[in-house]
Amino acid sequence: MSLKRWISEETEFLDLEGPCSLESGESLPQVRVAYRTWGRPRRNATLVCHALTGSADADDWWADLFGPGRALDPDRDYIVCANVLGGCYGTTGPTSRAVGAFEPYGGSFPAVTIRDIVHIQARLLDQLGVETLDLVVGGSMGAMQVLEWALLYPDRVDAIAPIAAGATQSAWGVALSEAQRQAIKADANFAAGRYSLGSGPAQGLAAARSMAMISYRSPQNFDVRFGRDANGEGDYEVQNYLRHQGTKLVDRFDANTYLTLIDAMDSHDVGRGRGSVDDALGSINQPALVISVSSDGLYPAEEVASVAQALPRGELREIHAPHGHDAFLIRINDFIERNHLKRPLKKAANN
Amino acid sequence: MSLKRWISEETEFLDLEGPCSLESGESLPQVRVAYRTWGRPRRNATLVCHALTGSADADDWWADLFGPGRALDPDRDYIVCANVLGGCYGTTGPTSRAVGAFEPYGGSFPAVTIRDIVHIQARLLDQLGVETLDLVVGGSMGAMQVLEWALLYPDRVDAIAPIAAGATQSAWGVALSEAQRQAIKADANFAAGRYSLGSGPAQGLAAARSMAMISYRSPQNFDVRFGRDANGEGDYEVQNYLRHQGTKLVDRFDANTYLTLIDAMDSHDVGRGRGSVDDALGSINQPALVISVSSDGLYPAEEVASVAQALPRGELREIHAPHGHDAFLIRINDFIERNHLKRPLKKAANN
Repeated sequence: MSLKRWISEETEFLDLEGPCSLESGESLPQVRVAYRTWGRPRRNATLVCHALTGSADADDWWADLFGPGRALDPDRDYIVCANVLGGCYGTTGPTSRAVGAFEPYGGSFPAVTIRDIVHIQARLLDQLGVETLDLVVGGSMGAMQVLEWALLYPDRVDAIAPIAAGATQSAWGVALSEAQRQAIKADANFAAGRYSLGSGPAQGLAAARSMAMISYRSPQNFDVRFGRDANGEGDYEVQNYLRHQGTKLVDRFDANTYLTLIDAMDSHDVGRGRGSVDDALGSINQPALVISVSSDGLYPAEEVASVAQALPRGELREIHAPHGHDAFLIRINDFIERNHLKRPLKKAANN
Repeated sequence: MSLKRWISEETEFLDLEGPCSLESGESLPQVRVAYRTWGRPRRNATLVCHALTGSADADDWWADLFGPGRALDPDRDYIVCANVLGGCYGTTGPTSRAVGAFEPYGGSFPAVTIRDIVHIQARLLDQLGVETLDLVVGGSMGAMQVLEWALLYPDRVDAIAPIAAGATQSAWGVALSEAQRQAIKADANFAAGRYSLGSGPAQGLAAARSMAMISYRSPQNFDVRFGRDANGEGDYEVQNYLRHQGTKLVDRFDANTYLTLIDAMDSHDVGRGRGSVDDALGSINQPALVISVSSDGLYPAEEVASVAQALPRGELREIHAPHGHDAFLIRINDFIERNHLKRPLKKAANN
């Protein structure tokens, strides 16, 4: 089994000269970055950061945001999105082979943090000739990268829009990661991460995905959509839905990659090495549009609101939707069309 | 490994003559019921119904409710609590052997419903000489039994107090069960339910328990209690907490039993065969004290409130606590001491 068929034809690749140092102190001898661009190349670009199981294909998973007059308009903007370090859609990660190695890294891939992911993106932008970013935008794990961009490269970032995540991975988020990690490791096919691609812990990863899907939705969303409907075999529709979601993810994702990236999410803490969370957020001078989801059960709206409050130029918008966390993907168009993501930032910048 | 050491010395046993018919159409050749009683035997008793991993030892898991002047006062009341049908603390379930069998039922134990559980309790009470129940009380899966008691044995029940559950298992509840079921089955030691006791799917059951514990608590509870604290090895305290909870449950519970009882919870629907949920609830004439938890993420307060609204003599109380679902166990004393569980019911009965 190869995951290559999930990498779009439009994806481009850049090999960064190594070694690439990681926050852990380890380093990677070389890093390949898979990325997409839209629009005419310019020194000032818009960077889109993807979530846990996303890819560089932002025009696919955030299609509603792309188009004339929309938040991401290739006629107006030069837009870049890269698969994250540690990912499995073309950027170096557990499914990659190190130079001279016969086997992929697998479970021996080093731990990466959100900051490592951002540093690799910055090196990509260097190579693309992009000096500054008019906007860094992303949801969930993407929002973690957005905040770190403003902190690690303050002079390159004009504005940020972190959506549906907090300034740290909360104990609640760490707990949800842990339950998923345990489910993956409970599958004997995990084999301490030394499985062959295609014979990995399919059942464990599917169980983890089911747990994750629950955390991405809401009681109201499931109850309205599925109720207690059951099929002819007596299985509830919501069971079939979760099983289907599990199967789909097993088909398109890798378990070691999943573990690498939930570990990265768990590492998220803008305060690490910067005094405190408030010290870090208080140092971000860019205008920031912070977007929360009223029904978010993974990153509750209050938690996201506290980010906006701590940002000197933070402005909070709440998506009022019953869908839960995933509203940042499935309802964002309604929200953006109404509120014009970039306008309030420019207005704020003139203040 | 035996679970017998978890059955208290005070537990008594009653063998019911079979066959015991189940709602599914299957039947059990015989059923043993493990139960506890407190107080002087009387024809009018108080019945306590336990939750998913509970036992007949209500004075242990609901210790705060027991005592002079409290909701459950052995000096005043005759109190009964039985391990549920399908359980693993002495009542017939997957860990029991059928007559003449060499192996426990294991995964071949028939499906049971909340109604089956209640019918077995009624047969126990017959044998104990208990004719009527001044109160049937329970939380979570216990509350499901409470509602079914009022519907299946309306003439035997004077008052009910269902706590922290709805009139049906919602799609959300079914989804959480499904993720846990998948985690258990992802463990190769599950072996389609044919494992030997003591060599069952420990990792899968632990992962399921971690997922369940998250659904029993709340973001605020975890964040206040654990924050981002980590131990010397770099593990977050909340991870260690969940692992510890998993290990503890594996030590004291059985995976096939767990599956049997989450299936029973998923079957919960007071409307089944009774027209509709509202028809069923509308037929309950007893005074009912319905208790919700403001921060309940498994059975949201609005869902529980809708039960109270549909009950002709329903009265709603909300436990305002940040603990989540488990507040029905860990905060119930504060609540009961303030509100005197039984008084409003008696007052309502005089109306």
